[in-house]
Amino acid sequence: MRTNTVMKNFLEPGAVAVVGASRRGLKEESFNPLEYMVQFGYQGKIYPINPNADELFGLKSYPKLEDVPGEVDLAVITLPRNSLPQAVKECVEKDIKSIIIYTQGLADADEQGESIQSEIVEIARAGGARILGPNTLGIINVFNNFHTVFAHVEGGRKLPLAVVSQSGIFMVRSFLKWVQVGQAPLGKLVDLGNACDIDHADVLEYLEDDPDIKVIVLYIEGIKNGRRFLEVARRVTKKKTILALKMGRSEQAARVVASHTGSLAGRDEVYDAVFRQCGIIRAEDLDEMDDLTQAFLNLPPMRGKRVAMFSHMGSVCSMGTDACGKHGLEMAELSLETVERLHGFFPHWMPIRNPIDFWLAAMGHGYKRVYQQIFEALLEDKNVDAVACLAPAFPEYYDSINPIEIIKQTTARFNKPVLVFVYGPLWMQRKVELEESNRVLACTSLDEAMKALAALLRYSQLNEQVSKVVEIDDAGDREGLSFQLEKITP
Amino acid sequence: MRTNTVMKNFLEPGAVAVVGASRRGLKEESFNPLEYMVQFGYQGKIYPINPNADELFGLKSYPKLEDVPGEVDLAVITLPRNSLPQAVKECVEKDIKSIIIYTQGLADADEQGESIQSEIVEIARAGGARILGPNTLGIINVFNNFHTVFAHVEGGRKLPLAVVSQSGIFMVRSFLKWVQVGQAPLGKLVDLGNACDIDHADVLEYLEDDPDIKVIVLYIEGIKNGRRFLEVARRVTKKKTILALKMGRSEQAARVVASHTGSLAGRDEVYDAVFRQCGIIRAEDLDEMDDLTQAFLNLPPMRGKRVAMFSHMGSVCSMGTDACGKHGLEMAELSLETVERLHGFFPHWMPIRNPIDFWLAAMGHGYKRVYQQIFEALLEDKNVDAVACLAPAFPEYYDSINPIEIIKQTTARFNKPVLVFVYGPLWMQRKVELEESNRVLACTSLDEAMKALAALLRYSQLNEQVSKVVEIDDAGDREGLSFQLEKITP
Repeated sequence: MRTNTVMKNFLEPGAVAVVGASRRGLKEESFNPLEYMVQFGYQGKIYPINPNADELFGLKSYPKLEDVPGEVDLAVITLPRNSLPQAVKECVEKDIKSIIIYTQGLADADEQGESIQSEIVEIARAGGARILGPNTLGIINVFNNFHTVFAHVEGGRKLPLAVVSQSGIFMVRSFLKWVQVGQAPLGKLVDLGNACDIDHADVLEYLEDDPDIKVIVLYIEGIKNGRRFLEVARRVTKKKTILALKMGRSEQAARVVASHTGSLAGRDEVYDAVFRQCGIIRAEDLDEMDDLTQAFLNLPPMRGKRVAMFSHMGSVCSMGTDACGKHGLEMAELSLETVERLHGFFPHWMPIRNPIDFWLAAMGHGYKRVYQQIFEALLEDKNVDAVACLAPAFPEYYDSINPIEIIKQTTARFNKPVLVFVYGPLWMQRKVELEESNRVLACTSLDEAMKALAALLRYSQLNEQVSKVVEIDDAGDREGLSFQLEKITP
Repeated sequence: MRTNTVMKNFLEPGAVAVVGASRRGLKEESFNPLEYMVQFGYQGKIYPINPNADELFGLKSYPKLEDVPGEVDLAVITLPRNSLPQAVKECVEKDIKSIIIYTQGLADADEQGESIQSEIVEIARAGGARILGPNTLGIINVFNNFHTVFAHVEGGRKLPLAVVSQSGIFMVRSFLKWVQVGQAPLGKLVDLGNACDIDHADVLEYLEDDPDIKVIVLYIEGIKNGRRFLEVARRVTKKKTILALKMGRSEQAARVVASHTGSLAGRDEVYDAVFRQCGIIRAEDLDEMDDLTQAFLNLPPMRGKRVAMFSHMGSVCSMGTDACGKHGLEMAELSLETVERLHGFFPHWMPIRNPIDFWLAAMGHGYKRVYQQIFEALLEDKNVDAVACLAPAFPEYYDSINPIEIIKQTTARFNKPVLVFVYGPLWMQRKVELEESNRVLACTSLDEAMKALAALLRYSQLNEQVSKVVEIDDAGDREGLSFQLEKITP
């Protein structure tokens, strides 16, 4: 079966069996995937499998898989590790091609666990089935309201964002930080867990032509088949943006990764080289990943390194300039047109220079009017590649200095990256308002945001270079790297 | 007059005159310091000075300073720059010793502005008065409900934190990010603006023995009298923690600083050396400053670099270990006592190692019970210098995994730094709850938080070294540094 069909079974099944489904739910302080699957509003068929129940969470339950009347595309298994080989056998007998296994304590634990893991992979392969996990939360697909996660997932807004993880963290990410309850900040998620069978490359192949997805985030503890990953990732980055976070950099962290998903973290510099060669953008930590994701989802390409900035607080200008320089960007020299256009708003003794501190102009000519004029002038300036500005986020008694509507309307008319530094007690609310427009990078750290802009620029440059790199690789360098990557495979 | 008396006049005046007070307030979209001063509930006398008004914001107004019946400790001036020399003269004639000047467009602007600034300093000095500013928002003192800022300031919780800035940004900081409306996250603030007279050293001297203040944050664009700063700062760090953020690192940023407050940013490495010598902890950006401030306000000293961590999500363990290693900390080897104590909670195949992934233990023996046991064991472990843990922040239907109360009660019984990674949609609420306990560093970025812990450790080590450094300095090195610092003085 082609990979894409396999992954389709996982993410878009017509019928699912939940093997080992329990009666206990949240009321009994138990986290039951069946309960959440029903809640999320999935429209396919769900068959609970439990020898001691007739009905679970309003669904008819079956004693065994073989009792299920119709075809089943996906089995989701929550059983102790010793029961897994028999359960996978029964899946194969029922002609189920896709199996998700939650169970912990396999290759992530001890030798016995490793041996059980090998056994179930063999049984599945012999029967033409594929396994996702074990030690996984499974998948989330916000587009068809299907998920297998044993926690509440918010639906709502559907982002063209896919996450491939080896951990539940990115599932929890779907509630996260910047996001008000009621919005899912991703479109699809696949948690590979121990990745005994389905791996990053399988999911990338599925996502390659997925019209729902524009940006792919990889959370990597270790990659087993380096050569295949290289080939697939290099192909996919031609069509989609891939961002990666690699865990287990230090020796201690590598040991932790080993006991988390049984992965070998591998030499960090090898991954660096692989990411560079494939055109994958690497994030240093979760916070940076948030900013990068937002930048790549929302912003147009960054064509050069010249940033223009304006703020009614001089210190934001200083900090922005520092952050700019730190990440290899620079403050644009404004064109004469811009200076002439803005001249009338400023006191005669004040030169109009980038970054523009416009407090006095705002006090003399109206905050919003001046904001709008400066913003437009900078976005139109041919010497400017991106614009950074300040959005004060204060309660309604300061509505006279609330530029959110101006920012939304103005960014929609131009095609340059815009970074908005949101500042004040209502920062979260304003950030969400700005993010809803899908046009800006709204941030609370100028440093992080400039870093994201710099990544955007690097990416534009990278894209021009990728084809060149591939040629050089094909002449020999690629073999070296693939080989190194495969050497670290268990 | 001694510096402390001078600064007392600024921060704890008995009577204030607002010179150039306007009728226009927020209703007219104007930011009037008098309006906010009245709102904040200051208990001293306020005299508005305005030739065309009898009453302003409910207060009797006077045409001129000389008409004010009683003594005045502090004059706050909001007039155009050309009127400043005359206004300062009138202050001197009224025997006012402390003057705050808001006006922009002095040394921060052009030659004429510089010349006016020099003139008012001369007039003040001849009359025995001191000037704060110009180009300043003045001061905030939450302890006596007095502030001169032309914006709404929240009172409420009083932190033993003083901020000395050259910008309004730290004023706005008093609403900031992590803070729910209704809390002021600082105790006292002095904005030096252009620092034509009162400078960092003056304020440090006042804070040196201030019983309200434990931690001092400096926001520096440039320091003029390097020798005096060195001497005072070195003395103050023996009693209080000083954190510093220095702007204007790059050449471009230095130019921005010059047009912001007329400061010369100076060579960055000189400041680095000065901070190190004085025992001042330097932050890289505002976000790091937030974490450092919280760490130094709330945490006991960090005695060594061994961190223990536990989380019900394995990936948090991996990320924490990476962050730990990145900032020079390490994962502690747990003592045998700890391992034996926790043994019974974990599956037999699972070794108890730091960091501890306790999901299975929690599912078998109850989340809160296991959380409490692990937390206590780690805090008691003699091999552990600090503990990092995860606090899920989910709505009430997940109360069974809400450890906030356990964290608050347990940390109060021990004397080790505790870092809590808050994660989930209610992260802000939980963070505020934790911060209220004044016992932990609550964070949303493990990387930033580990960096703050590392700073805490560096600080303990630094404190032991400071006296040694001072001796070496006195033998000659200090002269070199002071000299360099003074060379960059205008």
